[in-house]
Amino acid sequence: MKIINVGLIGFGTIGAGVAKVLLENRQVISDRLGAELNLQKIADLDITTDRGMTLPDGILTTNIEELIGNPEIDIVIELIGGYEPARTFVSRALQSKQSVVTANKALLAKHGNELFALARENGVDFYYEASVAGGIPIIKVIREALAGNRINSVCGILNGTCNYILSKMGDEGADFAEVLQQAQDLGYAEADPTFDIEGIDTAHKLAILTSLAFATPIDYEKIHVEGISAIKPVDFAFAREFGYKIKLLAIAKQEDECIETRVHPTMIPESHMLAKIDDVFNAVFVNADSLGSSLYYGQGAGMMATASAVVGDLVDIARNRLGDNLRRVPDLSFQTAAIKPRTYRPMSEIISQYYLRFLAHDKTSVLSKIAGILGSNKISIASVIQQGRGQSGDTVAIVMQTHKAKEKDLRLALTEIDQLSIIAAPTAVIRMESDL
Amino acid sequence: MKIINVGLIGFGTIGAGVAKVLLENRQVISDRLGAELNLQKIADLDITTDRGMTLPDGILTTNIEELIGNPEIDIVIELIGGYEPARTFVSRALQSKQSVVTANKALLAKHGNELFALARENGVDFYYEASVAGGIPIIKVIREALAGNRINSVCGILNGTCNYILSKMGDEGADFAEVLQQAQDLGYAEADPTFDIEGIDTAHKLAILTSLAFATPIDYEKIHVEGISAIKPVDFAFAREFGYKIKLLAIAKQEDECIETRVHPTMIPESHMLAKIDDVFNAVFVNADSLGSSLYYGQGAGMMATASAVVGDLVDIARNRLGDNLRRVPDLSFQTAAIKPRTYRPMSEIISQYYLRFLAHDKTSVLSKIAGILGSNKISIASVIQQGRGQSGDTVAIVMQTHKAKEKDLRLALTEIDQLSIIAAPTAVIRMESDL
Repeated sequence: MKIINVGLIGFGTIGAGVAKVLLENRQVISDRLGAELNLQKIADLDITTDRGMTLPDGILTTNIEELIGNPEIDIVIELIGGYEPARTFVSRALQSKQSVVTANKALLAKHGNELFALARENGVDFYYEASVAGGIPIIKVIREALAGNRINSVCGILNGTCNYILSKMGDEGADFAEVLQQAQDLGYAEADPTFDIEGIDTAHKLAILTSLAFATPIDYEKIHVEGISAIKPVDFAFAREFGYKIKLLAIAKQEDECIETRVHPTMIPESHMLAKIDDVFNAVFVNADSLGSSLYYGQGAGMMATASAVVGDLVDIARNRLGDNLRRVPDLSFQTAAIKPRTYRPMSEIISQYYLRFLAHDKTSVLSKIAGILGSNKISIASVIQQGRGQSGDTVAIVMQTHKAKEKDLRLALTEIDQLSIIAAPTAVIRMESDL
Repeated sequence: MKIINVGLIGFGTIGAGVAKVLLENRQVISDRLGAELNLQKIADLDITTDRGMTLPDGILTTNIEELIGNPEIDIVIELIGGYEPARTFVSRALQSKQSVVTANKALLAKHGNELFALARENGVDFYYEASVAGGIPIIKVIREALAGNRINSVCGILNGTCNYILSKMGDEGADFAEVLQQAQDLGYAEADPTFDIEGIDTAHKLAILTSLAFATPIDYEKIHVEGISAIKPVDFAFAREFGYKIKLLAIAKQEDECIETRVHPTMIPESHMLAKIDDVFNAVFVNADSLGSSLYYGQGAGMMATASAVVGDLVDIARNRLGDNLRRVPDLSFQTAAIKPRTYRPMSEIISQYYLRFLAHDKTSVLSKIAGILGSNKISIASVIQQGRGQSGDTVAIVMQTHKAKEKDLRLALTEIDQLSIIAAPTAVIRMESDL
C-alpha cells in the first residue's frame, strides 16, 4: 500500500486532535483512500507536555527543519495560528514543493493572496477547510459542489463564542458581561475575547468566503465589522415581539455588480434557518442561482471537529498526489485569470431595515418629533412599540422597525434625533435582514 | 481552452434544468474549471416540445447511438429515471468507457452494485450526487469531506412531498387526504403518490447513504419501510404536548457492529435540527466520531436544485478527466476490498421510545389493564395523557410515551392489548427518537 507522509507543525489542542484522528482512524482512512496517511513528524516548541495519547517513537521534534523541505514529507499541516512564524513556515513549505493544510483564518485573511500565489507557482496544493466554520465543509461545498452556480449571497454564523453569548442572553435575559464570564468559565471564550466578540474572527472568515463566492482576491479591509458588546437584554425582548432573533451575522452578497460584505449583530426572522442555530454551533446559509437556498450546520470550533476538516483536506490532497493531479481545484474556487478586484458597496449605501431603540424623556411630543425627522430623511416606520418595560425614572423606551432604508439616510436622521433635548441616550440600532 | 463534451439522455424537467445551467452558466463554470463543459447532444423520444430555451442547432436527437459510444462525448448524463431503459443505457455508456452522471435513486437502489462494478472495470467515473436529497451535496460531504471520520449515524428527511404534507398537517390540523390533494394541486405530489407517501423513495435514498456511510453493498431489501398515510391530525396535537414534531425519517445507524436501517414516521424533539425542517425542504443529519453532529439542508427536488447537483458532478468528473485521474474517489466512499456485507439488526430487535394512542371504551379499569399488559412485556410508561379531545361517543383516547423498549416486546404487548374488549380500534404507534 502506498504511503503519504504528513508532518504537523503545532501540537496544541487542534494539533492533538489531528494526531488522534490520524492514529485512531488510520484503518478507516486507508479503507477510503486506498493508501496510508502516515503522521511522520510533529514539531512543537513544547514536546514534553502529555497530550493524552501514545505516539510512535521519534515522531516529536522541536526542529522545524525536520519537516519543512524534508523530501519524505508530502503534506505539511500548519496549526500554530497567528501571523508569524506561521507565514514563514507555510511559505517555506510551499517553496519546498510540499502541499500545505492550515486552519489559520487570520493568516489567510491577511496573507492569503500571496500564499496562494506561492502554492500556484510551486505546483502544490494549499487547503484550508478548517479555517472557516471549523468542521463544517463549507469550503468544499462552495468550491466544488456548487461549481455550476452563480452565488448570490453567503451569510453565516461563524463564531461559536458569540453565538453562545447571544443564545444565552436571548434565553435568559442575562447581561452581556455576565454571559461572557460564564462562557469564559466554560472555556467557550478566551481570556481576552476581543477577536471573537468584536467580530474580527468572523470577518477573517467572511473575507475568505467572499473571495470563494465572488471571484475576487481576499480583502479583509473591505469588510465592515461591528461586535456584540453593545447589545442589551431588552433588545432580545423587543426582537421577540417583532418575531426576530439576534445573531452576529457575516453577510456577503452580490447585487448590481457590487459586493457587500459586513459583520454585525443582525435581527433575523424566527422562521429563517439561521435564526434556529443555537449555542456554540455555526452555520452557513448560501443562496445560489441554481441550487436556491441551502444551509450547512455543525461545530465551528473545538479539537475534534476542526481535526475532521484538517483530515478531510489531507485525504483530498493525498488523492490528488496519488493521481499525480495536484492543483486539481483552484485555491479560491476560480482560475487565477478569472479573479478580479471587485467594487465593494460603501456601508453608507447599503439598504436594510432597522430596529431602533430610543430612550426619551416622557413627553407627549416625542414620537411625532422622531417620526418627523425620520420621515424628512426618507425613512418610513413599519411598526412602533412605545413604553418599553422596566424603564426607570422619567424616561421611556420607544422601539421601531423601519421599512427598507439607506444606511446614510438613517445615520443622518439619528444624528439629528440624538441631539434633541427630549432624547436621553444615544439611540440603539440593529439591522434587520428579512430576505437573506 | 480544453473542452469536455457532455451528452444528456432525458430532456424532461431535470434534463431541461441541466441544459439551462450548462448554457446560461457556461462562463462561470469555465471560470472555475479552466475548461469548457460543452453540452454536445441531448437524446429524448420527444424533441419537438418547447422547453423554453434556445438550443444550438443539431443538439437534439432521438437516436441514443449518437451519444452512447460516441468517442467525442466524455460524460453521459442519465436523467430518464426508472429501471429500464436507464439500466441498459448506463451500462452501455460505462462499457464504452464514458463516465456517467445520474439522478436515478431507484436504479442505484436496485442495480447500483452491478453498475458501480462496471464503472470500476472500465476505469471511468459514475457519479450520483443528485440521487439523494436533490441539490444538497450530501454524497460529496460523506464521501470526501468526512473521510477522516467513523460515521455513527445518518438520519434524513429525504422526501419533500412527505415533509410538505406532514408540515401542513402539523400547522393546520388538516387531514392527510386533504393535504395530499393540496400537494397534488401545487405539483408537490405526483398523480400516483405511492412511491413518496409509502416511504419507498426515501428508502431508495437511504439504501445509498447506508452503503456510503458503513462500507457495505447497497441493499434496499434490508430497509424497514413505513409510510405516512396512517397518521391522524390528533397525533400532531399530542406530539406537540410532548414537545415533539412528526417527520418521515430515514435512519441508518451503526451500533455494536450491527447496522440498523429504517424509514418510518418519527417523533423528534422540537429542539432537534431535523424537527426544524419545514415544507418541501430536505435535510440530512450526520453524527460522526470526529466531527460530531452536522446538518445539510436544502431543496431535495425540483428542476434547478437537482441540476445544480448534476452539474457539480460533471465539473468533478471533468477535473478528474483533465488531470487524467478518473476513479479518484471510490464510488461508495470505500475501496472495493473494504466493502463487506454487514449484519443488519432485525426490526424486532430495535430499541426505541414509542408514542401509543389507544382508543378505548370509557371504563375506569382501562388504564390499569393497558399498563399491566405493557409492564408484563417489559415496557414502562414515561407519561400519559388521558381523555383526548374531540372523541365521540363512549370512547376515549389514551396517549402514552414509553421509556426505551424493544420493538418485539412492544408488538407482543399491543397484540394482547388490541384484543381486549375495552379497546375500540387498533392502537396507533409512532416511534420517538430522542438521541439522534
